[in-house]
Amino acid sequence: MNHTVTDATPQADIFAATRERFFIPDDVRYFDGNSLGLMPRIVQLHASNVITHEWGHGLIHSWHDAQWRTLPQRTGAKIAALIGAKPSEVIACDSTSVNLFKTLVSAVRLRPDRWKIVTDGEAFPTDLYIVEQVAKLIGLSVVAVPAAEIVDNLDDEVAAVVLTHVDYRSAEIYDMKAITDATHAVGALIVWDLSHTAGGVPCDLNGCGVDFAIGCGYKYLNGGPGAPAFLYVSERIADVCEQPLAGWFGHAKPFDFTPTYSPAQGTARFLCGTNPVIGLSVLNRALDIFDGISLADLRERSVQLTQTFIEQVDERLAPHGFIVASPRDPALRGSHVSLRHPQGYGVMQALAARKLIGDFRMPDYMRFGFAPLYNTEGEVHELVEAIDEIMRNSAWDAPEYRQRRDFT
Amino acid sequence: MNHTVTDATPQADIFAATRERFFIPDDVRYFDGNSLGLMPRIVQLHASNVITHEWGHGLIHSWHDAQWRTLPQRTGAKIAALIGAKPSEVIACDSTSVNLFKTLVSAVRLRPDRWKIVTDGEAFPTDLYIVEQVAKLIGLSVVAVPAAEIVDNLDDEVAAVVLTHVDYRSAEIYDMKAITDATHAVGALIVWDLSHTAGGVPCDLNGCGVDFAIGCGYKYLNGGPGAPAFLYVSERIADVCEQPLAGWFGHAKPFDFTPTYSPAQGTARFLCGTNPVIGLSVLNRALDIFDGISLADLRERSVQLTQTFIEQVDERLAPHGFIVASPRDPALRGSHVSLRHPQGYGVMQALAARKLIGDFRMPDYMRFGFAPLYNTEGEVHELVEAIDEIMRNSAWDAPEYRQRRDFT
Repeated sequence: MNHTVTDATPQADIFAATRERFFIPDDVRYFDGNSLGLMPRIVQLHASNVITHEWGHGLIHSWHDAQWRTLPQRTGAKIAALIGAKPSEVIACDSTSVNLFKTLVSAVRLRPDRWKIVTDGEAFPTDLYIVEQVAKLIGLSVVAVPAAEIVDNLDDEVAAVVLTHVDYRSAEIYDMKAITDATHAVGALIVWDLSHTAGGVPCDLNGCGVDFAIGCGYKYLNGGPGAPAFLYVSERIADVCEQPLAGWFGHAKPFDFTPTYSPAQGTARFLCGTNPVIGLSVLNRALDIFDGISLADLRERSVQLTQTFIEQVDERLAPHGFIVASPRDPALRGSHVSLRHPQGYGVMQALAARKLIGDFRMPDYMRFGFAPLYNTEGEVHELVEAIDEIMRNSAWDAPEYRQRRDFT
Repeated sequence: MNHTVTDATPQADIFAATRERFFIPDDVRYFDGNSLGLMPRIVQLHASNVITHEWGHGLIHSWHDAQWRTLPQRTGAKIAALIGAKPSEVIACDSTSVNLFKTLVSAVRLRPDRWKIVTDGEAFPTDLYIVEQVAKLIGLSVVAVPAAEIVDNLDDEVAAVVLTHVDYRSAEIYDMKAITDATHAVGALIVWDLSHTAGGVPCDLNGCGVDFAIGCGYKYLNGGPGAPAFLYVSERIADVCEQPLAGWFGHAKPFDFTPTYSPAQGTARFLCGTNPVIGLSVLNRALDIFDGISLADLRERSVQLTQTFIEQVDERLAPHGFIVASPRDPALRGSHVSLRHPQGYGVMQALAARKLIGDFRMPDYMRFGFAPLYNTEGEVHELVEAIDEIMRNSAWDAPEYRQRRDFT
């Protein structure tokens, strides 16, 4: 391995400091923060405090004394700062799938005279499954097309558009402003999925006039396995939304126990049942690592890491048959890079044996996440070096191993 | 306080041992396990292990190596043993409200030619709110009547019945077998809410032929604040159910990432998004305290505690104007007892100042939970003694303080 590469990017000091705030297992080089972020060191003590002191000692009084009740809002406010929203427009709760259901039903209820939902047919599958169910419940049709064709499929029959901002396979960034504007131009509403955006790629929900957004808490936000998801609703429309999972925490006065539902003002009406206090509190604390980091620095760091990787792949791995399956224009690229190779699965296994961890998506995508808070230029070089070495020491460069199995 | 009362119930030894497995803050006598269970001591170390070792060290490999993927099923199997279900029929996931939504939509989809949902108009409000939303989405009517009148309102226009097994205010147990039979007699399906049942009162879902059930993980199951809820679907019908929150974890092969939804076999199809691993794992570990406890002993212990309390109230607190608002027949009574008194709110505050913790529900319900795993006969006596003393040292026995504000 090449351990001599120094990290001379302008923000190296800032991000050397944030890297220190994560626990990194011995010898592990981790390129899977786009699937499950590393553990912030602070959450160990914090979770212990929540369990022992807030639950064990404080018991039910902690709903007030430890402010459990406002955890969804306080956590949402921290996420809002990363995605261009007002603090009051974001809450953390439930899962991404559940939050998509809540926002999409709310969106189409605001357009009762329309009958189509347009979405990316190659989106992360759970989004497609939820869109299908919403369409079935409300009696709408789903128009599933490639992301690039969404704008061409908009007309005044469309109630809502659902699109992921950063594609989970290619890391392609779709144009939030242009697609939101085109959606609004036909009178429809849009739900953006920010699962591969928040914490990895800045975005500007308010600046783009976005109606709804949802996203994941356990990837670049480092909230831990199955961390609560988040949900954004523009304050322009929150108070006219009627969401379908109208549980008691979304009530204006949950502790009045009234038999009739009166929604809370603003995005808080999108809460449903009792929130997962331990997981929410861990996510809330994990988000503090972003304190004082400018979004411009975050983005620049991310671009530098992915750019270095692509340049190294071109130089050292292209001869082995690796193809860059992510956009080469940094402006169109999120914080991970996908390579394709017919032996991709085997290469990922060989990397894992050396404690270099990325992930694999069918049929031949090797996905490497470069989390700006903790990945380094040195790790990028080690990764390329390791893949090169694996190829040089295997038979996989022989022509019969380089045939593509399925490049559709 | 009277500390000399000894606990001579037949199961005292068993439950003295289970009590030792909980953390109880100094001087606290806790009668609110029906709202938030005490912290099992074992979860401190367990949560630390999940966070540090499974997340911090294991990272994404823990989905397999630490069996995160099967946590909903493994946790559900432990709950199944407490509610008369087969291990494969129960999963732990989401919140009670979300699980009611999933099961009720599934139920009414199995009766597409019917147009009514019958429910208890005095149920815990979140159930009423969710029932209203399901009715609105599907285009049904809600018939909300007192629980005692549900059977009289059943006819062949009813698609589904939603009822809580143990009433959250009075602790009245409704007859699961009789009401389920009556529901089936008109060809409808039933969803039972076991939030105040599971872990406090045994029930027999299979024996009663129940279709669906849901319930809470943070009350008598001691899973911690906002612990995941649970969901039961009879194996008779699970494979023909179509649930509306069809997220990727309910897919037959979630990691194939196919764009078309194919539900998993059985109750697992009721999973939705990525599950909250930390909270689920804490609940899963907390449930081990029930290991080796027979449901008959659990029930007998619960009845003894509530019975002792009611007898003491009759003897010592009735003269102060306290009324027992829970059934006097133990067979009809859950594991908490509600008293009513015009000064109930003030009495609860005075008790809290002495570290005796129960809760209050409008307009004048004083609710005391007696968790069979940890509450003792001695605590029951201390509670009555304290209320008696509070009344004797206050002006609240004077006639003007004993007028009922709202006894409707």
